[in-house]
Amino acid sequence: MNILALESSAKAASAALCRDGLLLAESYQNSGLTHSRTLLPLCQELLERCELPLEQVDLIAVAHGPGSFTGLRIGLATAKGLAWPDEKPCLGVSTLEAMAWNFLGWDGVICCAMDARRAQVYNALFRMGPQGPERLCEDRAISLAELTRDPNLPGALLVGDGAELCLRSAPELGLRLAPPNLRFQHAYGVARCALEHIRAGEHGDAASLDAHYLRLSQAERERLEREKRG
Amino acid sequence: MNILALESSAKAASAALCRDGLLLAESYQNSGLTHSRTLLPLCQELLERCELPLEQVDLIAVAHGPGSFTGLRIGLATAKGLAWPDEKPCLGVSTLEAMAWNFLGWDGVICCAMDARRAQVYNALFRMGPQGPERLCEDRAISLAELTRDPNLPGALLVGDGAELCLRSAPELGLRLAPPNLRFQHAYGVARCALEHIRAGEHGDAASLDAHYLRLSQAERERLEREKRG
Repeated sequence: MNILALESSAKAASAALCRDGLLLAESYQNSGLTHSRTLLPLCQELLERCELPLEQVDLIAVAHGPGSFTGLRIGLATAKGLAWPDEKPCLGVSTLEAMAWNFLGWDGVICCAMDARRAQVYNALFRMGPQGPERLCEDRAISLAELTRDPNLPGALLVGDGAELCLRSAPELGLRLAPPNLRFQHAYGVARCALEHIRAGEHGDAASLDAHYLRLSQAERERLEREKRG
Repeated sequence: MNILALESSAKAASAALCRDGLLLAESYQNSGLTHSRTLLPLCQELLERCELPLEQVDLIAVAHGPGSFTGLRIGLATAKGLAWPDEKPCLGVSTLEAMAWNFLGWDGVICCAMDARRAQVYNALFRMGPQGPERLCEDRAISLAELTRDPNLPGALLVGDGAELCLRSAPELGLRLAPPNLRFQHAYGVARCALEHIRAGEHGDAASLDAHYLRLSQAERERLEREKRG
């Protein structure tokens, strides 16, 4: 099964082409340019240099959140656009679960943490087993103070743009930063995570892709606050 | 310091752009196409999508071996070609040492192993410390039988296209395969390794780049055997 996977939930953007669990090609970019300019060319260039036409892609996988509201919408819109003409199967997966899949073979607990501002992180914890990550909690928006009291956290490997926040919040817990080449999201994890969900019987199409923000947007939050006051 | 790094020592080819230790962009390909077609377009596309002209690259780094004779020559020739017009600094680094740098933050011993045919692997062992890999032996072409007797091997993480050979040769040693997205060489490690050597005072240019094959080529070996017989 050829999977084209997209990741644009934070500052880095990447696209990966996988055949089953094998990584055929990946393009990764964390140069500060906006995803609306980089993501679609990344995909196109990836397929071209593998000489694989889009028709031979069996599934479009995308990180559906949590993450940057704009980044997620760019990723989902790109996935929908690529899937629509051929009515190709699509699957959205948790950004955090996909992050953990990049560390297959690692020993111990993986703490995926994205900076959600206001002293919070988008977070989930996974215990890595030989077959893949086992989820220890649901995806959540959680304060750093609360996260550092999670009994599964001590000694964990920190992944994501919230990794350094976590490390500074709990220097006494023996936490470790993922290496710089693996610190941020990579689309391989999205493809590998989607493969697992497909094997478990999940399916979807372009219309079923939707963002999982976990929190209200700033605009919605401010409107609710105004309405409460008003 | 902007480093453009090339890796083409085995079946996968990749190029990475790093600013000091940070990965700005990487393109990786393991689709079976020849490096003479893929490597230079990978580099060009990488710089273009980061909007960084070649003039702003401060160092060209390349894996100089051991590895596939043809792959290494393509990598070295590409590096020389990119460096020559501006007389840009270049550095060749050990393929095996560069492989270990992709696992910064990992615990324990990393066994880098490339299939060298004839029941041998190109190999080196490293103990990963918080600052980077510490070398436990020189780069070597070694039989699988001899490697499995190395006292540093038990429990090691296996990296490279010789990883499965090693695992099958010594199922009793508790060896583990690196995850599929990290199993093969990635140019990030080349950039990170080169940065370390530059910090230690090494320097070089296009003319000083040379292949480190470790073994004679098949043609040279056969000629010597003919000469011995003759």
